[in-house]
Amino acid sequence: MDHVFAESEKAGFYRAVFERRDCRRFRPEPIPDETLARILEAAHHAPSVGFMQPWDFILIKDLIIREKIHQAFLRANAEAKELFEGERQRQYATFKLEGIRESPLNICVTCQRDRFGPVVLGKTCQPDMDLYSTVCAVQNLWLAARVEGIGVGWVSIIRADELSAILSLPRQVVPVAYLCLGYVEKFASEPELQTAGWLPRLSLREVVRFENWGSSSQGHWQRLCLELENR
Amino acid sequence: MDHVFAESEKAGFYRAVFERRDCRRFRPEPIPDETLARILEAAHHAPSVGFMQPWDFILIKDLIIREKIHQAFLRANAEAKELFEGERQRQYATFKLEGIRESPLNICVTCQRDRFGPVVLGKTCQPDMDLYSTVCAVQNLWLAARVEGIGVGWVSIIRADELSAILSLPRQVVPVAYLCLGYVEKFASEPELQTAGWLPRLSLREVVRFENWGSSSQGHWQRLCLELENR
Repeated sequence: MDHVFAESEKAGFYRAVFERRDCRRFRPEPIPDETLARILEAAHHAPSVGFMQPWDFILIKDLIIREKIHQAFLRANAEAKELFEGERQRQYATFKLEGIRESPLNICVTCQRDRFGPVVLGKTCQPDMDLYSTVCAVQNLWLAARVEGIGVGWVSIIRADELSAILSLPRQVVPVAYLCLGYVEKFASEPELQTAGWLPRLSLREVVRFENWGSSSQGHWQRLCLELENR
Repeated sequence: MDHVFAESEKAGFYRAVFERRDCRRFRPEPIPDETLARILEAAHHAPSVGFMQPWDFILIKDLIIREKIHQAFLRANAEAKELFEGERQRQYATFKLEGIRESPLNICVTCQRDRFGPVVLGKTCQPDMDLYSTVCAVQNLWLAARVEGIGVGWVSIIRADELSAILSLPRQVVPVAYLCLGYVEKFASEPELQTAGWLPRLSLREVVRFENWGSSSQGHWQRLCLELENR
């Protein structure tokens, strides 16, 4: 009846969770195929609504394709920058937000929305469940990469229709995540945007509620969360 | 420079990935608060676009609230069943698709779409990135629960507007995942829908592509994937 993992197994899992980072600076060494296969196998074992496994993993090394995608990023990022003002805009411009050309591998994770037919168990009244399944695969991939010593960065500042055109995606296939992968000099001890003071890390007790939205954290939970954070 | 995990750490992580299941049958024992706090802390350390941490975790034990949510499930499931035909419909009706009332804890994971203001770094041209961040938190939660010996089931056959009403969610807060948690008799060796023959498990080599959508799996990748699957 006891399905709890051994302490050493737990430690490996939690290390992956807490030491995973969004990486934008990569070393040029290629990722061995055997390592990449383990990472993709972990992604492929994500949960999926109605077991539809809607994901595909497009591995992109071609430098001409990556140059086109980088141009699409530059266009989107120039527009994005204009949405911030004053000091925020100046700080925004200092962030490195992608590693498309210098990373040894890019992966576009897509969602084929009609895989196995139009009606999917569990997706009938929440039609975006297939996109969410695909994101679960991305998170598995991200954690598995960390375990293998490989950094991953998710580049979200690109228009989806431009990605679709560059990668020749059929109409029913949606690009969910554009990822850069590679070995890194270091995994930072905390998220870069936290270190830079862009936004603060919320406390766990600020994001736990009881029974409904209105009820705030109970006293013993406040203490428990504080203990956990101070460990 | 070597950030690769030790073999024992890797083993713990990959065990969580491959032994995680979507659970619908629960034992009644409560989850200790210390265990739950570790699981939620793992969820809270998911990646989030622009570090906006848009998630909240509403812990639901109240049986009156859960009864309302179960009723919402029953309504949605009756409609869903009608979308399948013949033998598929008969089989659909045999699946247990939720454990809302018998599990000791339900968690609704929400996304506050305007947390920290209207303009979010990285979300400017892909507006659903905050929903995707919230799904990353769900997947961290799901894996951490497995490590702690606890089963999780994602109930997606409920209308979002009914969930929002029952849980008094403000307009800008979206319910992303409704989860049932608890100890279980067993974690099945493969997904229930696979065992039931509802859909087959795809091979890894069927979901890996090269450079763009059109190019199929290369020869050495075919072999590598086969080796991995037969291990």
